[in-house]
Amino acid sequence: MTDLFFANTYSPLSSQEIIAKEKANMDAPRFAHCVRVSQTAQKLARLNHYDEDKAALAGFVHDYAKQVPVSEYREVIKTQGFDQDLLNWNRAIWHGIVGTYFIKRDLQITDSEILTAVDRHTTGDVEMTTLDKIVFMADFIEPGRDFPGVEEARQVTFANLDAGVGYQLAHSLSFLAEKRNKIYPRTFKAYNVWSIKDN
Amino acid sequence: MTDLFFANTYSPLSSQEIIAKEKANMDAPRFAHCVRVSQTAQKLARLNHYDEDKAALAGFVHDYAKQVPVSEYREVIKTQGFDQDLLNWNRAIWHGIVGTYFIKRDLQITDSEILTAVDRHTTGDVEMTTLDKIVFMADFIEPGRDFPGVEEARQVTFANLDAGVGYQLAHSLSFLAEKRNKIYPRTFKAYNVWSIKDN
Repeated sequence: MTDLFFANTYSPLSSQEIIAKEKANMDAPRFAHCVRVSQTAQKLARLNHYDEDKAALAGFVHDYAKQVPVSEYREVIKTQGFDQDLLNWNRAIWHGIVGTYFIKRDLQITDSEILTAVDRHTTGDVEMTTLDKIVFMADFIEPGRDFPGVEEARQVTFANLDAGVGYQLAHSLSFLAEKRNKIYPRTFKAYNVWSIKDN
Repeated sequence: MTDLFFANTYSPLSSQEIIAKEKANMDAPRFAHCVRVSQTAQKLARLNHYDEDKAALAGFVHDYAKQVPVSEYREVIKTQGFDQDLLNWNRAIWHGIVGTYFIKRDLQITDSEILTAVDRHTTGDVEMTTLDKIVFMADFIEPGRDFPGVEEARQVTFANLDAGVGYQLAHSLSFLAEKRNKIYPRTFKAYNVWSIKDN
């Protein structure tokens, strides 16, 4: 973790300050996950000719707000111009879409590409930029992940980023349907764009 | 099959005429499936205090248009006021939603409750009437069906019709996601209403 350093933070805060604030906002396992996502995002950026340092930063901050209390989320959704339907969802959805609010407020990152990647990382979307895809996939395949199919997911993603996105969305939909959990409409719409194989 | 008889056909045609027209519009295995769905719908109607004869008729005609040629479907969608997005889908979707057109034209059934049940039987919907649920479930669990989970589906459905609807929609979503087939938005919306278990 000592080698974490972001040449450009897209914020008035230094790399060191961003890292310190993030560490203070979550427990140690969550922080370690963020570091692994940062490293995996950097690797995916290299493979896809994207700015490695920026990808590393976006990956690092993607879960910045994951452990913000539910009551604080509800207050922010009510008062900060978010779609009020979000009140019917939970932190699994909020920490991406609403997490951007805390990243702007606390880390003072205003780069729209980074914020959009955080926004979309829990649900995917119909339109996804290269950075969106990098963060979405890094979160799914970082070395700490262990679920049936993770090795296949890694192989698919390292070979082709778009194919990785399709893999993850199909995996999520199937997983959620088996658990009979409510599925966020954006995830469903993204599935119909990225995951379809003509049979 | 000789005992097929509908006391009320909701049409100027007799029971015998309806049966003859349906037989002429499909191959023998499809016709046998329609008879089994009719019988299962009748059973579900009895269990749910619904008009057994009407359920038997709706179950019988649900697949009336399943084997109409694709070219004819495309022509009807283009000229008969259907949502043009249907052109992006296939007969698996059409034979319910667009099938109603052929049932009105050929079988002269105009009862809106029967037509709606046919319309919704391939996709489900957010709002479903008792007859919608009966036809939707009879099609899924009729005695000729054989898929992993069908016995559980039957038990769930005979015990509680709504629970059956939730079971089928979750099963379909998971099945389609595993095959990475495109999912009709109405099916997804219906899943989010009928299938959710709080975990």
